[in-house]
Amino acid sequence: MSQSKVVIIGTGFVGMSYAYALLNQGTVEEIVLIDIDQRKAEGEAMDLNHGLAFAPRKMSIKSGTYEDCKDAGLVVITAGVNQKDGETRIDLLNRNAKIMQSVVGEVMKSGFDGIILVATNPVDILTYVVWKASGLPSSRVIGSGTSLDTARLRYEISQYIHIDVRNIHAYILGEHGDSEFVCWSNANVGGKPFKDVIESMPNHIKFSDLDAIYKDVKNAAYDIISRKRATYYGIGMALVRITSAIFNNENRILPISVYNDGVYDIEKDLYIGLPAVLNKNGVDHVVRLNLDSEETTNLKKSANILKTNINSMNF
Amino acid sequence: MSQSKVVIIGTGFVGMSYAYALLNQGTVEEIVLIDIDQRKAEGEAMDLNHGLAFAPRKMSIKSGTYEDCKDAGLVVITAGVNQKDGETRIDLLNRNAKIMQSVVGEVMKSGFDGIILVATNPVDILTYVVWKASGLPSSRVIGSGTSLDTARLRYEISQYIHIDVRNIHAYILGEHGDSEFVCWSNANVGGKPFKDVIESMPNHIKFSDLDAIYKDVKNAAYDIISRKRATYYGIGMALVRITSAIFNNENRILPISVYNDGVYDIEKDLYIGLPAVLNKNGVDHVVRLNLDSEETTNLKKSANILKTNINSMNF
Amino acid sequence: MSQSKVVIIGTGFVGMSYAYALLNQGTVEEIVLIDIDQRKAEGEAMDLNHGLAFAPRKMSIKSGTYEDCKDAGLVVITAGVNQKDGETRIDLLNRNAKIMQSVVGEVMKSGFDGIILVATNPVDILTYVVWKASGLPSSRVIGSGTSLDTARLRYEISQYIHIDVRNIHAYILGEHGDSEFVCWSNANVGGKPFKDVIESMPNHIKFSDLDAIYKDVKNAAYDIISRKRATYYGIGMALVRITSAIFNNENRILPISVYNDGVYDIEKDLYIGLPAVLNKNGVDHVVRLNLDSEETTNLKKSANILKTNINSMNF
Amino acid sequence: MSQSKVVIIGTGFVGMSYAYALLNQGTVEEIVLIDIDQRKAEGEAMDLNHGLAFAPRKMSIKSGTYEDCKDAGLVVITAGVNQKDGETRIDLLNRNAKIMQSVVGEVMKSGFDGIILVATNPVDILTYVVWKASGLPSSRVIGSGTSLDTARLRYEISQYIHIDVRNIHAYILGEHGDSEFVCWSNANVGGKPFKDVIESMPNHIKFSDLDAIYKDVKNAAYDIISRKRATYYGIGMALVRITSAIFNNENRILPISVYNDGVYDIEKDLYIGLPAVLNKNGVDHVVRLNLDSEETTNLKKSANILKTNINSMNF
Repeated sequence: MSQSKVVIIGTGFVGMSYAYALLNQGTVEEIVLIDIDQRKAEGEAMDLNHGLAFAPRKMSIKSGTYEDCKDAGLVVITAGVNQKDGETRIDLLNRNAKIMQSVVGEVMKSGFDGIILVATNPVDILTYVVWKASGLPSSRVIGSGTSLDTARLRYEISQYIHIDVRNIHAYILGEHGDSEFVCWSNANVGGKPFKDVIESMPNHIKFSDLDAIYKDVKNAAYDIISRKRATYYGIGMALVRITSAIFNNENRILPISVYNDGVYDIEKDLYIGLPAVLNKNGVDHVVRLNLDSEETTNLKKSANILKTNINSMNF
Repeated sequence: MSQSKVVIIGTGFVGMSYAYALLNQGTVEEIVLIDIDQRKAEGEAMDLNHGLAFAPRKMSIKSGTYEDCKDAGLVVITAGVNQKDGETRIDLLNRNAKIMQSVVGEVMKSGFDGIILVATNPVDILTYVVWKASGLPSSRVIGSGTSLDTARLRYEISQYIHIDVRNIHAYILGEHGDSEFVCWSNANVGGKPFKDVIESMPNHIKFSDLDAIYKDVKNAAYDIISRKRATYYGIGMALVRITSAIFNNENRILPISVYNDGVYDIEKDLYIGLPAVLNKNGVDHVVRLNLDSEETTNLKKSANILKTNINSMNF
Repeated sequence: MSQSKVVIIGTGFVGMSYAYALLNQGTVEEIVLIDIDQRKAEGEAMDLNHGLAFAPRKMSIKSGTYEDCKDAGLVVITAGVNQKDGETRIDLLNRNAKIMQSVVGEVMKSGFDGIILVATNPVDILTYVVWKASGLPSSRVIGSGTSLDTARLRYEISQYIHIDVRNIHAYILGEHGDSEFVCWSNANVGGKPFKDVIESMPNHIKFSDLDAIYKDVKNAAYDIISRKRATYYGIGMALVRITSAIFNNENRILPISVYNDGVYDIEKDLYIGLPAVLNKNGVDHVVRLNLDSEETTNLKKSANILKTNINSMNF
Repeated sequence: MSQSKVVIIGTGFVGMSYAYALLNQGTVEEIVLIDIDQRKAEGEAMDLNHGLAFAPRKMSIKSGTYEDCKDAGLVVITAGVNQKDGETRIDLLNRNAKIMQSVVGEVMKSGFDGIILVATNPVDILTYVVWKASGLPSSRVIGSGTSLDTARLRYEISQYIHIDVRNIHAYILGEHGDSEFVCWSNANVGGKPFKDVIESMPNHIKFSDLDAIYKDVKNAAYDIISRKRATYYGIGMALVRITSAIFNNENRILPISVYNDGVYDIEKDLYIGLPAVLNKNGVDHVVRLNLDSEETTNLKKSANILKTNINSMNF
């Protein structure tokens, strides 16, 4: 009986909201926290452990070192730095890429042989960097991608049409960023295609509303940041969902950042947000949706942006 | 803070599997068991209560009387009799209808003002009988309908294509019985329409396989009964799902037996299995799927069969 | 990532109530059902699988063969036969012992290297038989013991003094049978010793009531059997609790049937109900409570009865 | 079917860790967030809502106003200010007391008729202030008291003796602050009195170790604060535990800040950390433990300190 063990690298708000959600949901057996500020990781582990008496399941939680990755099933990277005054976007990207390379070097040195999940932004590019640095098969390196954006979309639609969020099926695809888009052509509500939903509720929802919903979702991060400086609870729970799909060997379809090996006819050799089947081995396969022509164009554009970014980096 | 209180009428295997699932999932605050054999109901309540120390949540469980329906949010009817030697199907139906009328009479006499969920077969017809006898609005009387058949279908497809059952979205509609049918036109796997799924897996799944899956599902009850004499665990959990949708006020879409008030162009004034939005008030509305022509024909046939049955009854 | 895999031998009501509770609580990843009547096991697996769409977690459930024990972490034995007309108690015991030996032979032949949990009655004696037949260390063979009796006691006290069942801490120890007894000397309510509880509620609870509570618990099985012919829900959930303690590596103290290797000064070389610390390796150690003199006498008596029974068997 | 509705006043780390834990555990149906910084409350509600698609249960989460308290079952106060440069402890206390009075005034104006739970420090004193300001019966105003300290103690003991934290039963009583103390006389491990535990493990645990454990617990908050500036995850989950006891009507014994109406022979007319039975009506009764003489002295001292503080305030 081996452990479902997760090592979280970076104990900022995203890493800790993920850890706290794991504790409250009882998702795994073991959590190890790693941070450059080792004392912070220690303090966070203490704070979490004091909740154990109220948790649904026994868990082992501690701060640790990269050695702990050795027998971990999953390493989740949330570490990263923020823009310095006067720093260009590409300089910041290169700086974070160096951090990823350094982190991954340490992880792999431990003898780690599991799955890496990246949550640091820009997530698609940094997942690519992590994959390159790791030497792991691409099926075992993934990013949080558009999982949170998709959850936001589902929540917004749910509120709009008064149907349970778990009946709303629609993906945000592409870059986790400005070029992402909603795949309305494959969206449905409880099985009913979204276009039928709209046609049957002419007084309730219009095609023009979709654009508003989409914009709300794209702006959600900015809206939250303007109000509370950062966004972390939603992503924490999205990461838990991905974690469950892996440790429970679910073969679950989730929109995450995956390596495009040609399933979609877009730029190759990059990571981008697509629906993929996840199990204990990582990505089983990417799900090929039949996109309409506008969506196809949007996905290509999004891939081009990611490719341009990757090419502009000095690594 | 009022209670989420369920009264279960009939403590046979279906009623008790439902009660035991409620206990294990911690779905409600209060369960009352009623049976003609009052001592059996007492024994069942004892047996359940002995599991309380291991349950996820505090609950109150007891055997009771129809008086307990007074402040219940939900009454679930699983009582009924089996065919006697030489009894015709219609005689059996009339006998069970009389039981429903008697049970509902007692329930309503208590001052009950909640939702009734019927699980006794033939469920669509008996739900109609219960509705008539109750005098409640049709939105507050429902039957388990094709909820279990749908779960069976999803499990079979899940096994067939190796994707998590929670990503399989497909309904069985119509009568819970031989005339039921799969609504393939609105089926999808993780958002991908079923026809696209088949086209993209030509070596893996064929249209001809669908027929086999459908037959497996239709025969599931017979297959189980030939092996263990009755089927009750699946339906027990389906009833819990419906219960959660009600008490959590979910606005969840579930395929249940609902009153057809004209949303679909079929025989009216009957109960039949259709997707409906459920919340604390019962059925918010029936979801109108765009069926293809074969499905439309099938639904009409199924409705005709139910109507013929209702008309043949002497009440 | 290995599996938390349970093989259940015997698909009678106890085995199936256990399996159904595992499904509803999402306790393990894999369940295999084995029964002499293989078709019954198949039917039960089907019925459970149809609930998967409503379960809290993905699980794999199937009927199988003893080969499936090979990589199982836990084998739970619920199989056994009932008394035939004119059969003596000791003849029945010998017959069930032979079944245990045969079952264990098959289990061990698979290469099984996990923990065996016995629930067939008389559980203490048959757990001893299983241990002998298995050749496993005694730490890895346990019986359900007085876990259910203890849960019944806690429920009865909880009802009596109107305090949550999870605040009631009291054990039934000894043989799971007529010679079992309550260890009042180590009982407490939310930390408050039971004797203090009684002293502080002179109008509410008396020492004389304790005897009534104890008798209620001892008679619970008979009371239920007289009403519903068998008792299985409570024990199903008790077995789930033991299962969680093992797979979650909890170091949890539970009153189960364990091998007495001298922790208590009673007859040795037998299995009897005592509080023990359970984790993924089975019994870590038996907890030595300081019993009062009456309890010490009771435990000795109970052990003597078990020893006499063991000695009377022809194996 | 009324709602289990919680209004959280103050969306700092404690309030939000509580809200996030409620979401992850699916404890209630409705959460309303109130903060002086209304935009922050809005941002927090958005961030939580984006996790809804991954939550175990449907919930309604929004930012609101004091009007929302009208039909809430529970109001949790986590608001408060920090010490300003040069401010005395008593000035800070008076300032926070004024905030409590203002908050409670608004709460009561709404027509609120539920339970108030205070988490702002110094929690015992401010709970007293809230009670006075509310005009509610003392059974319906409680503070988080020593619930977190107790959880910390249980975790520390659990780690020390390698037994599941849920088997460790020991309370920290008195002021949530420096004068709190462990009630070792009523502590037990899986029912075994703590003094017996120590006697039976002479090589493993000594009485002198107890002092170290106790100090660890008392220093836990400082240790965490020195590492991560604040402590909020543990208290967040402690508040959830109290919330469940209330909404599930558990009659659960928890160590919280309650009004001393003479159950213990200490200063009266104050709030202090004692074990109390909680249900949907608030405090059913305070549990009177038989303390040893040292503990009796400690409790008196702690009560005196609280009384002195209350008397020093200008209200």
